[in-house]
Amino acid sequence: MEFAKRIQGIESSFVRDILKLATQKDIISFAGGLPEANLFPTGRFAKAAQEILTNPKTAKVALQYGESTGFTPLKEIIAKTYKIKDNLDIDPNLIIITTGSQQALDLIGKTLVNEGDEVLVERPTYLAAIQALQFYKPKFTEIELSSNGPKTLPNKTKAKLAYIIPNFQNPTGITWSNEKREEFAKWANKNNILIVEDDPYGEIRFSGKRQKPLKTFHENTVLLGSFSKILAPGLRLGWIVAPNKEIFHALSLAKQSADLHSSQFTQLIAAKFYEDFDAQAHIEKIAKEYGKRKDILHSKLKEIFPTAQITNPDGGMFLWVRFPEEIEVLSLLKQAVDEGVAFVPGVPFYVSNPEKNTARFNFSNTNESAICEGVARLQKALKSIV
Amino acid sequence: MEFAKRIQGIESSFVRDILKLATQKDIISFAGGLPEANLFPTGRFAKAAQEILTNPKTAKVALQYGESTGFTPLKEIIAKTYKIKDNLDIDPNLIIITTGSQQALDLIGKTLVNEGDEVLVERPTYLAAIQALQFYKPKFTEIELSSNGPKTLPNKTKAKLAYIIPNFQNPTGITWSNEKREEFAKWANKNNILIVEDDPYGEIRFSGKRQKPLKTFHENTVLLGSFSKILAPGLRLGWIVAPNKEIFHALSLAKQSADLHSSQFTQLIAAKFYEDFDAQAHIEKIAKEYGKRKDILHSKLKEIFPTAQITNPDGGMFLWVRFPEEIEVLSLLKQAVDEGVAFVPGVPFYVSNPEKNTARFNFSNTNESAICEGVARLQKALKSIV
Repeated sequence: MEFAKRIQGIESSFVRDILKLATQKDIISFAGGLPEANLFPTGRFAKAAQEILTNPKTAKVALQYGESTGFTPLKEIIAKTYKIKDNLDIDPNLIIITTGSQQALDLIGKTLVNEGDEVLVERPTYLAAIQALQFYKPKFTEIELSSNGPKTLPNKTKAKLAYIIPNFQNPTGITWSNEKREEFAKWANKNNILIVEDDPYGEIRFSGKRQKPLKTFHENTVLLGSFSKILAPGLRLGWIVAPNKEIFHALSLAKQSADLHSSQFTQLIAAKFYEDFDAQAHIEKIAKEYGKRKDILHSKLKEIFPTAQITNPDGGMFLWVRFPEEIEVLSLLKQAVDEGVAFVPGVPFYVSNPEKNTARFNFSNTNESAICEGVARLQKALKSIV
Repeated sequence: MEFAKRIQGIESSFVRDILKLATQKDIISFAGGLPEANLFPTGRFAKAAQEILTNPKTAKVALQYGESTGFTPLKEIIAKTYKIKDNLDIDPNLIIITTGSQQALDLIGKTLVNEGDEVLVERPTYLAAIQALQFYKPKFTEIELSSNGPKTLPNKTKAKLAYIIPNFQNPTGITWSNEKREEFAKWANKNNILIVEDDPYGEIRFSGKRQKPLKTFHENTVLLGSFSKILAPGLRLGWIVAPNKEIFHALSLAKQSADLHSSQFTQLIAAKFYEDFDAQAHIEKIAKEYGKRKDILHSKLKEIFPTAQITNPDGGMFLWVRFPEEIEVLSLLKQAVDEGVAFVPGVPFYVSNPEKNTARFNFSNTNESAICEGVARLQKALKSIV
């Protein structure tokens, strides 16, 4: 069978494959990107599901075909939350509910990217975004990250769109400052660049002050969000806020073709959760726990890698390690897996010239005692390679 | 904003837009493709959801990230059902769970269709399949349908794949005979054509004998199925059976990029439904009711359009009307909507040279008394145009 050209050269996501390691018994995994399952609001979902399905009116809405762009009450909840969090006025009629945030990336590639179009990404950036966009054969260019945003912006650019994760970035945990956001927005505006602002982690902040969405500074921004980290990934619900009716319409057509609409049942559950329970309190509980885990992972890694550069994020699920040159990361990973601990090497997070002495560590899915044990195992692995 | 070339020329699905009519108060709609919501197994879903979410072990599986290709027990149920229904041996490891059958169409286009590739479709065919494949810019060619399959097969063809709905086709309700299937399979095999066999309605048979899947006659077949018509569309669950590991792998990569995976929660509900209840009895109940509705719609339409050709399907959700030349279908629709009844003109179901005097009528979502009232309104509309 001759496959379509667009799939040639696309490899299975390294992270998805390494996730298989994480499911092996006795492995302590810093490799995946899973939220902590013990924090899922399971009882409340059970209550919501029961109420939806035992009321014939809502049961029919939950189980029948629905609108391609999503369940209106859920869109209204999303818009209202932006108003509360960021004082941002969002028109619910510009929101599209997607089957996870991943689908948003695919729809954006499908509607906006022609072969050879220049797409600007952070260096490093989220590998599943690279994978999703690669189907549409763009030319990637990179902006190097410092601790609070881009190091420098090029004088000249042909970029059509910029894909940015400004809060607690995956993989680095870096957050852009308001100043860097404003500066970047001005530059993007001058160069007529559409910003795709991906923000799945923004609400999971355990320290510092919430920064303003890039959208605040740049109208021509497609803003992405997700319920995967604040509620549960198994619902498969994310969203797109389109900057205008024209882009909304194009994305809606692509959404319709992609899967008609996202699950009505899980959309109704998410909406009911926000209507009946204190979502904010639930999110704060997650952030508090992740903050504790980040603290312990960060300090333990500092102990065993005293000369490494380790980011110290204010939120999200990941931190980033730049090892000293003498540590060969793939050898360390190999030994680590033998000792029963896993992490992700940094290489797949680069679109070109990867920095090979880097790695991403997840702290959301490992409890405090397992973090201590995991780092102890890592220390053993380290001793066997140096 | 300059959109990607692939979205230029794509229009919103006519059926999706006309569905908006169907939601207007007092309209009796034969236009949509909705299953009867009163037949959804709501109580059983409520029980399944409750059991899944109150058991911490299954709750975590339902709400966490899952495997890209789907929940293994659900794949095993699908494979087992093919064995029972068709004595077909399906390897569960070649199954991919999709976000509705619509996603399967998109993934097939994405992995298999290059711009200009020839794709063979029935004349007429399912309009959302046309729309999904159009994103990948194929060249469509058509095979004319008779009452039991293709009229004739071309001597020469450059087609790479053939998209076929052999059971109770949408839009015509036509079912291919075993003889026509075997003949077509031989022809496809000789011409090295991959068959895409879309079968969302096959289990909803109310008369006649189940025909063999095209896959029985042609190994190089991608077989598609859906839970939307036999359970509920709101779950957003369909599936692909890949013919071999190579195509499975390519489709898996596309699936991973498209939405990581389909909702774990709704996958667990579907699996639990099959494990705990008699799915076969449930499907028979649906088929029996739809059969009654088809009978009454067919006979009432015959009464008011005595010279029209009207298909009389053995299953599914649609029948097809070819009106006599003197009836102008768009004028009839306009009057019909004024009288409070809707149907879909046949035009959007053709990839070229549409037969303008045709229409599709859905009978699954209108009860018997509403069917009588709907056809009475249609008769009034008819009187005002002839």
